[in-house]
Amino acid sequence: MSDFFERSLIIHEQLRGKMGIQSRMPILTRDDLSVAYTPGVARPCEVIAADPMRARDLTIKRNTVAVVSDGSAVLGLGNIGPYAAIPVMEGKAILFKEFAGIDAWPICLDTQNVDDIVETVKRIAPVFGGINLEDISAPRCFEVEQRLQCLDIPVFHDDQHGTAIVLLAALINSAKVLGRSLIDLKIVINGAGAAGTAIAKLLRCVGHDPNVCVPVKDVIVCDSRGAIHRDRDDLAGYKQELLAYTNRQSVAGGLKEALVGADVFIGVSKGNLLTAADIRTMNDNAIVLAMANPIPEIMPEEAHAGGAAIVGTGRSDFPNQVNNVLVFPGIFRGALDSAAHSITEEMKVAAARALAACVEQPTADKILPDPLDRTVSPRIADAVAKVAAND
Amino acid sequence: MSDFFERSLIIHEQLRGKMGIQSRMPILTRDDLSVAYTPGVARPCEVIAADPMRARDLTIKRNTVAVVSDGSAVLGLGNIGPYAAIPVMEGKAILFKEFAGIDAWPICLDTQNVDDIVETVKRIAPVFGGINLEDISAPRCFEVEQRLQCLDIPVFHDDQHGTAIVLLAALINSAKVLGRSLIDLKIVINGAGAAGTAIAKLLRCVGHDPNVCVPVKDVIVCDSRGAIHRDRDDLAGYKQELLAYTNRQSVAGGLKEALVGADVFIGVSKGNLLTAADIRTMNDNAIVLAMANPIPEIMPEEAHAGGAAIVGTGRSDFPNQVNNVLVFPGIFRGALDSAAHSITEEMKVAAARALAACVEQPTADKILPDPLDRTVSPRIADAVAKVAAND
Repeated sequence: MSDFFERSLIIHEQLRGKMGIQSRMPILTRDDLSVAYTPGVARPCEVIAADPMRARDLTIKRNTVAVVSDGSAVLGLGNIGPYAAIPVMEGKAILFKEFAGIDAWPICLDTQNVDDIVETVKRIAPVFGGINLEDISAPRCFEVEQRLQCLDIPVFHDDQHGTAIVLLAALINSAKVLGRSLIDLKIVINGAGAAGTAIAKLLRCVGHDPNVCVPVKDVIVCDSRGAIHRDRDDLAGYKQELLAYTNRQSVAGGLKEALVGADVFIGVSKGNLLTAADIRTMNDNAIVLAMANPIPEIMPEEAHAGGAAIVGTGRSDFPNQVNNVLVFPGIFRGALDSAAHSITEEMKVAAARALAACVEQPTADKILPDPLDRTVSPRIADAVAKVAAND
Repeated sequence: MSDFFERSLIIHEQLRGKMGIQSRMPILTRDDLSVAYTPGVARPCEVIAADPMRARDLTIKRNTVAVVSDGSAVLGLGNIGPYAAIPVMEGKAILFKEFAGIDAWPICLDTQNVDDIVETVKRIAPVFGGINLEDISAPRCFEVEQRLQCLDIPVFHDDQHGTAIVLLAALINSAKVLGRSLIDLKIVINGAGAAGTAIAKLLRCVGHDPNVCVPVKDVIVCDSRGAIHRDRDDLAGYKQELLAYTNRQSVAGGLKEALVGADVFIGVSKGNLLTAADIRTMNDNAIVLAMANPIPEIMPEEAHAGGAAIVGTGRSDFPNQVNNVLVFPGIFRGALDSAAHSITEEMKVAAARALAACVEQPTADKILPDPLDRTVSPRIADAVAKVAAND
C-alpha cells in the first residue's frame, strides 16, 4: 500500500496535472479562425440566444460535468481544503473521460458555507450538463444536494449515491449467490454519513418488479453511538429521517448488539471495528461489505473465519472490490445522453440492476465486475437513459 | 462574410463542442487506478494540505485559465446571456490551447450582478492559475476586474487589455513605419467602453525606456456624445477618471471636430461612422485603426482615399488585422510560467513591445504579425515572464 502513495506523488510531480484540454477544431488557417471564432461564431450564439436549449446541440454542454468539492471530506483525510482536493477531483475527471467519454472539469470551492456553495454552483451551471458533488462532508452534503435540485441538470453526490448504487448491486448479486431474496435480508449499516444514509434510502425501493417499489424489510443504521432508534434524543435532523424507514423493531445498543442475527453487514465507517467473533453472532452465510479505506472494518480473512460467505471491500487487492468507478461514469453518461434533468431513485436502482447484470454468473468471489471493465459504463448508461426516457 | 456564419453553425452542429478533456494518465490497470486515484492520490493531497502553494507543482493549476463571462456584451451581439456566450468562450479556450498550450475552461455565469460575479470567481479560483474575463459589459467590467485583484492569480479582462496591447503594438510599428515618435502622435479614440478606456490608460506609459513611464501627450477619447472633456456634466465615474490623463486641451464637440489635426484614429465603436472627407481633416499620413466588427468605422479603401497612410481593422480580409489572439495566449503563458499574481502595466507594455518586435521590418501593409503566426505567443510569454520575474 505505502508504495502507491510514494509512486503517486512521483507521478503527480512528473505530470503536473493529470488532464488537459483538447481542441476538437484545429486552427490552422484564417478561415478556421473565422468559423471557430469571430466573426462566424456569432451565428451559433444567435441561435442559442433565441433558444437556450440549443446549447445542448451546439456546445460542450451536452457532454460536460463539473466535479465540485469544497475539500471538507476528502478520502479518509478529512477537511483538507480546496487546494489539497484538486488531485482527487482531477482523478475523478479522468475517470469520467476514460470510462464514459465525459468531459469533466474540477471545481474546488474556496468556501464551506452551504449557502455559498449552492449559489456558486447555480451560477456556474450554464456550461455544464451535470454536477457531480464530491467529498463534501455530512450533513452539509445533504442540504447542498437537495437545494441544487432546482437546477435543470442532474446533481448527484457520488459519495452518497454512487456508493449506494454499487453496494446495492453487490447485494443483488450476493443474494443471488446465496439463493436469498434481497428484501428479506436483515441488513446492518455501520456509518450514518453520506454513504450510509444513501444506501439506507436506496434500500427502500428494490423489489424485482421495476414498476413497484418494495423496500428491504429490516435495515438498521448505526452511528458511532450505536443503532439509530426512536428513543435516542441525540439525533440530528437527517438521522431522525432515517427512523421513518429503518429499525422498525427499535433495536437499541451498539453495533455489536445490532449485528446479532443479521444477514448483512455494510461498513461505511472506519477500519478494524469487528472481529471473527462478531461475525459469528450474525446469521449463517453472512454477507460482509466492509468499505472503510484503506483498512476495512474487518479484513476478509477474519470475516471468513467468522463464517461470512461473501466478503467485499473497497480494496483492489482482495476479491469483490466495491468501487464507485463502476457507477458514476455510466450513470452520468446515461443522464447526459437522455438530457435528464435529475437522477431519480428509479434511475439509481436501474443502474444497480444493470451493474449487477454485468456479472453473468456471480459467485462468492465475484459479485461485481472488475472496476476496469470498460463494458460496464455503457450498459449502465443504456439502462439509466431508458428509465429517464420513460419519465 | 455571411458564408462564415452559416458554415460556423454547421461546424458547431457537427462538433457539438469544440473542445474536450484529455486524460494525461491512462487508466489501464488496477495499479494505474491506485496511483492516479485512490488510495495513492492521498499522498499528493497531503503534501498540498501542508503547503497549498504545492498545488502548482502537483496539479493542473500551473496551466489552467478560467474564461469567465456573464454573457452581457458578447461580440457585437450585446447581452445574449450565459448560454449563448458558450460558443465564444469555447472558441477562446481552444485558442488558448492552440497558441499557448494553456488548458482553459469556459465559465458562463448565470448572474450579471457585480457582487455575485466577484464572489463566484473568488470561490472557484483554487483550481485555476489565471482568470480571463471576457465579454462583460462596461462599466461593470471595470469594477469586477478591480475587485478581483485581491486574488493571488492574474485576473485579466481581455476586451480591455488584450485589445489595448495589440493596438499599442500596432501604434508602435505604425510610428516606426512613418518615422514618428509615438509619444508625439495626436490620438483620437472613439468608444469609451472596455477597450477604449484600456487603450487610453495604457498610452500613459509607453516611452522607449522600459524603466521610465512616458505618456503619449495628446489623447482624446470620444463616446457617443463626442469628446470627453472637463465641462461635460454627463460623465459616469470611469469616464471622469479619463479626464485625469486625456484631452488636456479640453477639446469639445463631436468625433469629427476631435479628428481635425489628429494623427491617429482608433475606433472601438461601431461601423460606418467616418468618410474619406473626415480623414482628410486629419494630419497627413494619418493612422486609422478601425476595429468595429464586422463592419469597421471606415472601410480601408475609403480611409486611404482620405489620405490615410496606414489602415488596420479587425478583419482578416484586409491587411493589418488587429486581433486579440496575438496577445492573450502569450500574456497568460508568461504569467503562468512566472507564477505571477497579477498582470501589471509593465507586463502589458512588455507584451506590446514584444508583439511589435515580431515584425522585423514593418511596412504600411504589415504592422502586425499574422494572427496565426505560432512564434508570436512564445515571444510575448518570454517578455512578460521576464518583467514578472523582476517585479
